[in-house]
Amino acid sequence: MSAMTIAADSLTTLAQKTRNAARQLAATPTIVRDQALAAIADALEANAAEILAANAADCEAAQTNGIGSALYARLKLNQAKLQGAIQGVRDVGHLADPIGAVQIHRELDTGLDLQRVSCPLGVLGVIFEARPDAVMQISSLAIKSGNGVILKGGQEAIRSCTALVKAIQAGLAQTDIEPAVVQLLTTREETVALLELDQYVDLIIPRGSNSFVQFVQNNTRIPVLGHADGICHLYVDAAVDFDQAVTIAVDSKTHYPAACNAIETLLVHHNIAETFLPKLATVMGEQSVELRGDAKACEILPNIAAATAEDWTTEYSDLILAIKVVDGLEAAITHINTYGSRHTEAIATTDKPTAKEFMSQVDAAGVYHNCSTRFADGFRYGFGAEVGISTQKMPPRGPVGLEGLVTYKYELVGDGHIAATYSGSDAKPFTHKDL
Amino acid sequence: MSAMTIAADSLTTLAQKTRNAARQLAATPTIVRDQALAAIADALEANAAEILAANAADCEAAQTNGIGSALYARLKLNQAKLQGAIQGVRDVGHLADPIGAVQIHRELDTGLDLQRVSCPLGVLGVIFEARPDAVMQISSLAIKSGNGVILKGGQEAIRSCTALVKAIQAGLAQTDIEPAVVQLLTTREETVALLELDQYVDLIIPRGSNSFVQFVQNNTRIPVLGHADGICHLYVDAAVDFDQAVTIAVDSKTHYPAACNAIETLLVHHNIAETFLPKLATVMGEQSVELRGDAKACEILPNIAAATAEDWTTEYSDLILAIKVVDGLEAAITHINTYGSRHTEAIATTDKPTAKEFMSQVDAAGVYHNCSTRFADGFRYGFGAEVGISTQKMPPRGPVGLEGLVTYKYELVGDGHIAATYSGSDAKPFTHKDL
Repeated sequence: MSAMTIAADSLTTLAQKTRNAARQLAATPTIVRDQALAAIADALEANAAEILAANAADCEAAQTNGIGSALYARLKLNQAKLQGAIQGVRDVGHLADPIGAVQIHRELDTGLDLQRVSCPLGVLGVIFEARPDAVMQISSLAIKSGNGVILKGGQEAIRSCTALVKAIQAGLAQTDIEPAVVQLLTTREETVALLELDQYVDLIIPRGSNSFVQFVQNNTRIPVLGHADGICHLYVDAAVDFDQAVTIAVDSKTHYPAACNAIETLLVHHNIAETFLPKLATVMGEQSVELRGDAKACEILPNIAAATAEDWTTEYSDLILAIKVVDGLEAAITHINTYGSRHTEAIATTDKPTAKEFMSQVDAAGVYHNCSTRFADGFRYGFGAEVGISTQKMPPRGPVGLEGLVTYKYELVGDGHIAATYSGSDAKPFTHKDL
Repeated sequence: MSAMTIAADSLTTLAQKTRNAARQLAATPTIVRDQALAAIADALEANAAEILAANAADCEAAQTNGIGSALYARLKLNQAKLQGAIQGVRDVGHLADPIGAVQIHRELDTGLDLQRVSCPLGVLGVIFEARPDAVMQISSLAIKSGNGVILKGGQEAIRSCTALVKAIQAGLAQTDIEPAVVQLLTTREETVALLELDQYVDLIIPRGSNSFVQFVQNNTRIPVLGHADGICHLYVDAAVDFDQAVTIAVDSKTHYPAACNAIETLLVHHNIAETFLPKLATVMGEQSVELRGDAKACEILPNIAAATAEDWTTEYSDLILAIKVVDGLEAAITHINTYGSRHTEAIATTDKPTAKEFMSQVDAAGVYHNCSTRFADGFRYGFGAEVGISTQKMPPRGPVGLEGLVTYKYELVGDGHIAATYSGSDAKPFTHKDL
């Protein structure tokens, strides 16, 4: 079935098909899924010319429509970018299989054997703006983890996504896995409808702007993996190595200002603010970072603009840094727990008990001591792949690798065991022996 | 602060107080939390007379209002039930500490050390009907896991809950833990308001009827731990030990019919239906179970009522069992994945490959082979405590012990490490060495 004919089906029928295909996929051994990834990579290579032509048409249309330059950069594929993405598909094949892992193995009684085994979630719904390379990355992660996936790309990438999914399905057609495990939606209406399919879709992964992710979070009962804001802080304690703190601040702010793990606000202990802030301002100035300060910071750095209340809640995604002078650790923690988006929060200090208290009391997926917030990333953590970064409280939290695409089942095997045996006045005790 | 004065505060202020108190609690060592549980148990014992008197007043008012007998049984405390619950508080003190567990420990590079450490969620919102013993159980699990808890009991249990929370707070006042970690709401309006406090409350645990849980699930953005329906099945395969299958069916249906892990529908392979169903009907008849069958089942058992479409989606919570004759494994799996509530599903078969396929393809928190569905329970699984049973897809799933009340943080400790070192053309490689 080609991607083009699928769009004609009703979404519910399509979702059911994906679910059924995914059910078969869930039962496949590792090698079948890994061979499928190789087949997909081969098919993408074989269809590279067609994919690049489709992308060129998307790019041309986008330019006619006056697309922004950042979005255009994400939309545009070339031979090297495509090859890199195809290599990414092959790399996913070499990751450890996230399904079938035995997490608990316990004898409840003789012959009554409990195992908790990791298994696929079922069907993923992935909604992304522009970037067509997400199709390849997400499809390969979904197949590796035994999940079906319904993709909805941005309208501006429709030709690219269609060509990519067609190639992926052609690759799957060479394997024992039904091509229907990967589906593409092409209309805007389908996005909203997809968010309502909680009966068939187990996880939504939105990729795009903060407001887009927030829209998704607010419009579905399906669990959402992702985060809207990335408001991260660096707190510079009184006991601190000035040079190190400046270096960490600069990296956290300037290494990639548009990233969610860049800092937006620097908090500094009032005891050292007068000596630290001028040093910081000099280096930040060299990096063209605009500083905005609270009243105390502006006293010390009279040339910077005053921060307003809005600054503490803004993800600049730009070379702007808000600065606040705080009375100490308690005030820093309170500010972070109030305004932070629970993403990644760092402290620079030479005092270990202070660092320990910070890390214990700050409410965030990542709490860092003497290093840049920019390390908050699945690849840097060594997960091999990154599905997304979650700022929800329940796991999976923080950078999420393949484990975010699996859940688990309790498998209990007996030989006629019944609960009545273990109840009442002459109840047989459980053995509860870990195996 | 007593439970009575708290109700006068605004809910948001109360939630903030709980959150702040919980933040301190999160940083306490195991021994402080365990001592607090002992202090709570002592205070409950010291205030037993007052608690029982408050409960007697609740019971009297409930009878005047014509409360149902099942609800009355849950509402009623006596010396033995109270002592049992207090022992439960002490027992929680002896469980392993769920917080501070190192789940991942990895060197990203020399001196850059990543740990994933379990930590409390923050604040739990627990809403329950009648049963005042839930106050003691939930409060102790919350404190053990380092969480604050806002409790909302049923209107009919208001005096009991108030006396219990007063005693719990009096116990906490003897310790280093702020009594504000445990709070009680007393008005119906506060329940709805609580569900909107996603800024302060991290997990909602509803305890009550299916419709009540569904109401909670549909009216909050806060994650909900629990399940509305428990529609479980037993599939009796063609290759089966008849006696064993009947025994499992009877236990699964009759051991405690009101439980969520009781079966509602029995599916039977058509090859054996003619010989199996009469045997089943005889034993179920002895247990006063009403049978309802699809067309084929009614042909074989002409005395039973016909099942309607509604039967496949109904949790009877009673001695009623629907029966459907299916063509085989595939049809059984399809029925279960369509009508099951993803709670617990069992197969009776002597054929291991069939069992394996069933367990792999059925979508449920528990998939059982040759044993009763009634084993789906945190205590039976050996978790020591049960927070609830979750039928959501993402973990925690199935019976949930203390692990459902914790999440994790990534703690990264460096010595001035910055991301720029590991980027660009002369990027230093990560070591990614598990420690």
